[in-house]
Amino acid sequence: MKILCEKNELLSGINIALRAIPSKTTMEILDCLKIKTEGDSIVLIGNDMSLGIETRVKGTIVEEGSLVVNAKIFSEIIRKMPDSEIVFEANETTANIKCEKINFDIAVRSAMDYPDLPTIEKNNYAEMSQLTLKDMIRQTVFSIGPDSDQMKAMTGELFEIKDRTFRIVALDGHRISLRKVELNEDYGNQKVIVPGKTLNELLKILSGELEDKVKIFFSQNHILFEMDNTIVLSRLIEGEYYQVDRMISPDYETLVKINKREISDSIDRATLLLKENEKKPLIFNMQDNEMEVKLKTPFGKFEEKLLMEKEGSDIKIAFNPKFMLDALKVVDDESINIYFMNTKSPCVIKDKNETYMYLILPVNFNDD
Amino acid sequence: MKILCEKNELLSGINIALRAIPSKTTMEILDCLKIKTEGDSIVLIGNDMSLGIETRVKGTIVEEGSLVVNAKIFSEIIRKMPDSEIVFEANETTANIKCEKINFDIAVRSAMDYPDLPTIEKNNYAEMSQLTLKDMIRQTVFSIGPDSDQMKAMTGELFEIKDRTFRIVALDGHRISLRKVELNEDYGNQKVIVPGKTLNELLKILSGELEDKVKIFFSQNHILFEMDNTIVLSRLIEGEYYQVDRMISPDYETLVKINKREISDSIDRATLLLKENEKKPLIFNMQDNEMEVKLKTPFGKFEEKLLMEKEGSDIKIAFNPKFMLDALKVVDDESINIYFMNTKSPCVIKDKNETYMYLILPVNFNDD
Repeated sequence: MKILCEKNELLSGINIALRAIPSKTTMEILDCLKIKTEGDSIVLIGNDMSLGIETRVKGTIVEEGSLVVNAKIFSEIIRKMPDSEIVFEANETTANIKCEKINFDIAVRSAMDYPDLPTIEKNNYAEMSQLTLKDMIRQTVFSIGPDSDQMKAMTGELFEIKDRTFRIVALDGHRISLRKVELNEDYGNQKVIVPGKTLNELLKILSGELEDKVKIFFSQNHILFEMDNTIVLSRLIEGEYYQVDRMISPDYETLVKINKREISDSIDRATLLLKENEKKPLIFNMQDNEMEVKLKTPFGKFEEKLLMEKEGSDIKIAFNPKFMLDALKVVDDESINIYFMNTKSPCVIKDKNETYMYLILPVNFNDD
Repeated sequence: MKILCEKNELLSGINIALRAIPSKTTMEILDCLKIKTEGDSIVLIGNDMSLGIETRVKGTIVEEGSLVVNAKIFSEIIRKMPDSEIVFEANETTANIKCEKINFDIAVRSAMDYPDLPTIEKNNYAEMSQLTLKDMIRQTVFSIGPDSDQMKAMTGELFEIKDRTFRIVALDGHRISLRKVELNEDYGNQKVIVPGKTLNELLKILSGELEDKVKIFFSQNHILFEMDNTIVLSRLIEGEYYQVDRMISPDYETLVKINKREISDSIDRATLLLKENEKKPLIFNMQDNEMEVKLKTPFGKFEEKLLMEKEGSDIKIAFNPKFMLDALKVVDDESINIYFMNTKSPCVIKDKNETYMYLILPVNFNDD
């Protein structure tokens, strides 16, 4: 195998395929990237057995072939090469990587040893902007649950298409995060649970450009994200997702409109009195047009008064400040609406069209 | 005690005093900052018993006083306040910190509990630009030795004034780093060992402006750095420093002139084949006008050829690549001179006037 490729071209391909290399594994072969030639492309493949990524870069193929190379060493070598043409030439055991007057020799293995990505049927798909998908994942994925065998569905996100509406939902038992968007075409209905790890890697691969498209293929056990030069193939989480719509009530007793920046800054300030991972109730005392934000910990007391607009009754309620901040961080609106029912029911932060909806359960508090 | 102070003014003072707050301590009081009023200044003091920092900021003193407050909480509170005036009002147990509509209440303690900074005699001093001192420390401090009771002197740097020349030396048994500068006046001769920790904190306090001056006071057991609004007072390390001048020979067999950037980049590339803290000899093979840089590890082989100018004999010699990189990083010259004697003697990187001198011991190697 002998290939020629511009350093930056090759490096950007490697960086994508690296996303599927596990940080820890007992199978040594999974620490490797597979490199193969295909027409005038160099194909780079990473695979951790539940997530597989395949990306192609343009290059000159002098001699065809395929092999497997340690991902970390190979990526570091290419990263530290000058901005020039890389010549990669390998026999069965060793690859020589040359750039200008620099030479690296590293070990390679047979591509036969590397696990193939599963082949899936490409019957059902939907298409959208990479920017849209990236935003929707970013704005929900923080509220998936921690790794757990009992509640596997919580460790992923619901991807649901119904009547041309695409909806993503994440929940962890204390909160629900939900984003939806109208699709341009009718792609049929779908409902799958995508692992959180896949989504976190996908976030770093999706381009963030409105014009760039991504096709999502749905199959029995897998989901496939197809972009221009890259595919991301992931196992799905088996089982039923939670009945989210039953958990959200449209009723409310109090509606508060408040400046998002001001309430975020206030909570951020309050939480400096908390040690890492310490939980204390953050109290919102809403009377007339004033929201009093209060927090008390062994370190001291915090209190700030914010202006707001209120419809409905006064209410005093408390939340885990982290959950409140997480939701506020991903809402882009300058002014937000928060809906309250009573001190025991969740509050809901949402816009008029419910393109976003963040539901957070309150916590008990003792305000003396 | 009641004081008023602009947030940013107060915060920059706190950030300086914080440098003397130990990250870990068994004496709880050392986790605190002392705050006291003095004329129209607010004085902030940190003290870890071997290093003390005192800095003053302008403010309005409504009621005089002094107290002690948890450094971390207090600094976080001020950091997260809006860019506006802070009102700090305290009784014997509690301080109220107010800014706009934000209120924090935190515990305070009596200033009586806090250890005073030692008073030193200010007879002997030298003055120089803060930029000069900062550069000289930065360019040497990386080669002080690790913490050790046996070789205490290695954990600090030699500060030596002799015939108007100020010299800083650091060494760790494998290398010596040395910087010197001419002073504008004759301040008399001095020779002390300053702890590495003091120097690392000082690096973050010195301004880096040529016009800003620092006075260095030398006393029996302490060194005092006096800047505009801040003093840094440190214990000295007791004992004799090493006879550095005996370790450096002006003789050489080979002089190599090489582009600093090219040799640094080459070593940087080679070291990616090393695991963290792994040691392998980096071989320089210098023949005619070519320097061959080579490194071999279980991961693979590296080889690069660099152009150079050479006077004297050919030589093949090996070094710890980290030590070589450390020295090259802090040399600002575009082209450097490296002096070699033989494969068992240290190489020396230095300029004509010896304003800098980096001596590095070679390592054994086996080049097959």
